[in-house]
Amino acid sequence: MAVGSRLYPIDNIFIEGINEVIVSTCYNAAPMGIILKNNSLSMIVFRTSHTAENIIRDGWIVAHITHDPVLFVRTTFEDLSSESYVEEKIGEYHIQRLRSVQNWILCKAQILNKTSEKIFVGLEPVHIALTPEPPHPVHRGFNNVIEATVHATRYILYQDTKLAELIRHHGDLVMRCGGESEKRAMKLLYTFVNSKNPGTFFE
Amino acid sequence: MAVGSRLYPIDNIFIEGINEVIVSTCYNAAPMGIILKNNSLSMIVFRTSHTAENIIRDGWIVAHITHDPVLFVRTTFEDLSSESYVEEKIGEYHIQRLRSVQNWILCKAQILNKTSEKIFVGLEPVHIALTPEPPHPVHRGFNNVIEATVHATRYILYQDTKLAELIRHHGDLVMRCGGESEKRAMKLLYTFVNSKNPGTFFE
Repeated sequence: MAVGSRLYPIDNIFIEGINEVIVSTCYNAAPMGIILKNNSLSMIVFRTSHTAENIIRDGWIVAHITHDPVLFVRTTFEDLSSESYVEEKIGEYHIQRLRSVQNWILCKAQILNKTSEKIFVGLEPVHIALTPEPPHPVHRGFNNVIEATVHATRYILYQDTKLAELIRHHGDLVMRCGGESEKRAMKLLYTFVNSKNPGTFFE
Repeated sequence: MAVGSRLYPIDNIFIEGINEVIVSTCYNAAPMGIILKNNSLSMIVFRTSHTAENIIRDGWIVAHITHDPVLFVRTTFEDLSSESYVEEKIGEYHIQRLRSVQNWILCKAQILNKTSEKIFVGLEPVHIALTPEPPHPVHRGFNNVIEATVHATRYILYQDTKLAELIRHHGDLVMRCGGESEKRAMKLLYTFVNSKNPGTFFE
């Protein structure tokens, strides 16, 4: 049983369906969806990713719970410096987690199934570091950064104009509903996409 | 100074930009955006709404912080029964708040400005009832219910096919990323829209 798991049963933290967190593995971080279904946690990872390679070798992930829009965009499009990580030994695990995020969960990660493209990973929390906080209202500015980010990863691969339109739609909402951090994150996203596909967005 | 305001300064609860909450006034509840800007809270309300009428007469609102997708959809499209409210006397205020939401903030509401269409309302917390909880990850299922709901209120007014397309886009994501509550909320939304504009969505 995980340290802290009596205080925080998983369905008190994760919500049924897909939960977006920033996952770190060995000096690597990327936004990923953790699925809560039938009281079990799992995730689906592309085999070609660094995350998959690290999970297969090391058998752990750290799921960071954060609402920092800039961190979501940065970890989607670039590699963080090694100074962005804290190294720590927890039981048998030697982990790297994100220095700037105080809420995280170390999970044992086991391959349950494979296809030619993906691995299906079962997750089991082994250490929970969460600080209770007052509940926050829904923030469409932040939420629309997340939507835009997901579409941007696909746009970079396929250059579908429908995706570019959706990204613009979400970006306009971020400018209308967001605070300074959300607007900064959105501008960063436009810059990243333009660096791969010049001229897609006005910055 | 509000009861609880030292524990919870407003920028610890609300985030810069627009914060979506469910606002109750006299036996009335509706999702609304509360703006945090320069450490002040405010909201913009259509003069023709019950909310505006009640604020002008009574001078208070209760902002409920919740992530219940079904409640967001229901309070957008229908009137809740009087049993849905708790009556309470807090200082000089006789309030009605939502029974099913444990996290709420009573605010004094003052008209700061008016146009022919809208009132601009300044908010000042006078009583804060918030229970700290573990932080929750981003949930695109829930977030897409909120996006769909906002577009649905406009679709009902203008029947713009672009809005119907956006609602379908968000609805598909809810079915992919959401849990049972989010899916139920989305089906309810389709039913409400179809009841006003028959045949818009397959249910």
